[in-house]
Amino acid sequence: MRKLLWVLVFPVSGAFAQDSAIIRRMADDILTNGQAYNNLRILCKQAPARLSGSANAAKAVALTEAMLREAGADTVYLQPCMVPHWERGAKEEAYAVTGNGRVSLAVCALGNSVGTPATGLTASVVEVRSFDELDKLGKKGLSGRIVFLNYPMNQTLVNTFSAYSDAVRYRVMGPSAAAKYGAVGFILRTLSTSLNDFPHTGTTRYDSTMPKIPAFAVSTNDAERLHVLVAKGAVKSIFMKASCRMLPDAPSYNVIGEIRGSEHPDEVVTVGGHLDSWDLAEGAQDDGAGIVQSIEVIRALKAQGIRPARTVRAVMFMNEENGGRGGKAYSDNAVADGLQYIFGLESDNGGFTPRGFSIGAKGAQLKAFTDWAPLFEPYGVYEWRVGGGGADVDPLVRAKAVVGELLPDSQRYFDFHHAGNDVFEAVNRRELLLGAVNMTALIYLVSKYGI
Amino acid sequence: MRKLLWVLVFPVSGAFAQDSAIIRRMADDILTNGQAYNNLRILCKQAPARLSGSANAAKAVALTEAMLREAGADTVYLQPCMVPHWERGAKEEAYAVTGNGRVSLAVCALGNSVGTPATGLTASVVEVRSFDELDKLGKKGLSGRIVFLNYPMNQTLVNTFSAYSDAVRYRVMGPSAAAKYGAVGFILRTLSTSLNDFPHTGTTRYDSTMPKIPAFAVSTNDAERLHVLVAKGAVKSIFMKASCRMLPDAPSYNVIGEIRGSEHPDEVVTVGGHLDSWDLAEGAQDDGAGIVQSIEVIRALKAQGIRPARTVRAVMFMNEENGGRGGKAYSDNAVADGLQYIFGLESDNGGFTPRGFSIGAKGAQLKAFTDWAPLFEPYGVYEWRVGGGGADVDPLVRAKAVVGELLPDSQRYFDFHHAGNDVFEAVNRRELLLGAVNMTALIYLVSKYGI
Repeated sequence: MRKLLWVLVFPVSGAFAQDSAIIRRMADDILTNGQAYNNLRILCKQAPARLSGSANAAKAVALTEAMLREAGADTVYLQPCMVPHWERGAKEEAYAVTGNGRVSLAVCALGNSVGTPATGLTASVVEVRSFDELDKLGKKGLSGRIVFLNYPMNQTLVNTFSAYSDAVRYRVMGPSAAAKYGAVGFILRTLSTSLNDFPHTGTTRYDSTMPKIPAFAVSTNDAERLHVLVAKGAVKSIFMKASCRMLPDAPSYNVIGEIRGSEHPDEVVTVGGHLDSWDLAEGAQDDGAGIVQSIEVIRALKAQGIRPARTVRAVMFMNEENGGRGGKAYSDNAVADGLQYIFGLESDNGGFTPRGFSIGAKGAQLKAFTDWAPLFEPYGVYEWRVGGGGADVDPLVRAKAVVGELLPDSQRYFDFHHAGNDVFEAVNRRELLLGAVNMTALIYLVSKYGI
Repeated sequence: MRKLLWVLVFPVSGAFAQDSAIIRRMADDILTNGQAYNNLRILCKQAPARLSGSANAAKAVALTEAMLREAGADTVYLQPCMVPHWERGAKEEAYAVTGNGRVSLAVCALGNSVGTPATGLTASVVEVRSFDELDKLGKKGLSGRIVFLNYPMNQTLVNTFSAYSDAVRYRVMGPSAAAKYGAVGFILRTLSTSLNDFPHTGTTRYDSTMPKIPAFAVSTNDAERLHVLVAKGAVKSIFMKASCRMLPDAPSYNVIGEIRGSEHPDEVVTVGGHLDSWDLAEGAQDDGAGIVQSIEVIRALKAQGIRPARTVRAVMFMNEENGGRGGKAYSDNAVADGLQYIFGLESDNGGFTPRGFSIGAKGAQLKAFTDWAPLFEPYGVYEWRVGGGGADVDPLVRAKAVVGELLPDSQRYFDFHHAGNDVFEAVNRRELLLGAVNMTALIYLVSKYGI
């Protein structure tokens, strides 16, 4: 759980007056000349659907390599990692068979799902809202049937990531929990806080001791429709068809751009997002935003002629979505390479207006951050929460780094997450750039003062 | 100027523990059963383009009267006011004549603008960026020409309303400033923080000592294009055509829904938004959002069975956009009716995620609000700024009321403001409802404790 630490803001103390002026200059530059929005357009339009192992993921590697050079990084290099390679195959199909004919359903396979037989799969459906209900129904109630798991995200949780944390277990573990009792297919109500027609994909994980059954998500609108039909007893059967499959692991890369530290080159400050995306859209909020913001940090420091005391690295992590292999490769290297990894900052919560940072520190280390807090108030960041980083930087804790993440406003994130509407146009230029402003300020301060 | 007062947040003190629980119940209800989003859809789709004096403005009066009854107001009534009645007429037309033919421009007339002659108006163009440049060019440089005032909003101001305050003088006073030197037409670069194809309208005000010249806004994208053409000397002339006109004042109404106070019925707590909108779109962010949020306050109080100690009024103000007559009628009445107007809260900054409140108070009155601040932290409101209310509640200061306004995130507001894309779909359900949560909490507290 995250704890609200403090949001007391007071005038910037004299000690930081110079930093305040430098941050102002960087902010003005980013808000007027920032390249993050243009880079996001390029990434989204030229390399959409950058799922690990795909041709577009490779294209994204090349594109961001070029962007980091253009941004002025001293060194740009690739860090190899092997990644899972899952393919969706042909567009999935699903419909409910009723007395009044077929009712088609907006679905997509969950990531890692197996396909159906080539001719599809037909079975009766049973709707549940929890694992408990599955357990109660047992083999008798579930064997040979398709489970429709209709658990809506909790709207009363103000931070939508809390609602996601609560609901995501059904996507990750639902298919095997249903297969345990002999279910032959699984359909999840899309994890979204809005009602719309986009099914949201995302990783599911099969329990190796259970049969692997095809697993879909259905749009929230169609989940509501299906619920009404099921409640009326109108659904005779459901048809599912998908040709997705897992291929052998494929070679891929993290992309790294670096400004070498002028005083402590062996102390590394990392900032990053993830380069891969799900395959249904352009991966704009998730996580093109974090990628182009991290590149912007490099550009903005260079544009002000700042030579950081410690080495600053922007890292485009590969394979956050379905494996985390890029984050692991980076931290494996960090543990072994003899450098000192002091901080890892991630942006993977969308390119929305920034509201705060989560920081995985306590005591004197935490105080270093809260002492800087007044410097962020002019740019809308008031929250400093004790918490972790994200999936890609958290492994850096093994290398003794403090980790953290940007906390943007969360209200719209699950309108787009892993869905076909996560496109460039869903990102607002100023919101994206303000995130980059605050990230640049924090990286600037850590690279200057350490922690 | 607004001053950031404090954003210190600490645990809710024992004195407010019961209030904290009641606010939690109201918030849960609003976030799950709230009607604000549904009401916004109805208002936007059934009564778009609710410009004062129009048939749709009258329809909006009837619609919100019904919504207030449905929300459970004890009394719903209309408060008459006469309003200006301006009509746009036929779709405006404008193009630049170049050596390579006509380049059409996305334009709209500014509100209150006169029309052109029926056959249009053709003149050479001169581009300026400031009033100073107009003064320098003088009669010699401007007489008989069309002025293109190309002043971009300042991107470095983090609060976009500050950038708007800086730029809006060119819309309000630009046409007469140009007419002073004999200009025959005026084209303003749209006041938007984004580059897009929507011209934004809004009020212009003619100086009665100057000739009234037709005044347009051109989209930011076309302002950029026109700038390039003008800089190259490629524009021979510009053509403008519009048939807008001012009609006699028309009768209209504020719509008021009230819950009578149980202990101090003569003390009135007002919450409102404005019912009129510009005519180019649906007036969703401006200010359908404030309207449906204010109705939601009534619904949410009633849904929890709360009988406020003081009278709570939701007011749908008419004519904020081009006259402020509704706000004036309400405050005229407040000064005269013998009741005590203790607080007026406005929501007219869009239905985006709430971040704070501006409060026009000091000393002990201000402390009443800041003592409540911890109650708002769970709902994302951290900022308590000393400032005014909005255009509709500010006149209540004459009736000795404290005024205030909701401060939502401002980054996207000027993407939509007064433009054709300000439609229902531009509003996010959760962002809108969270605003209503915080407004309801504040009205609940003021109605219980006074100030």
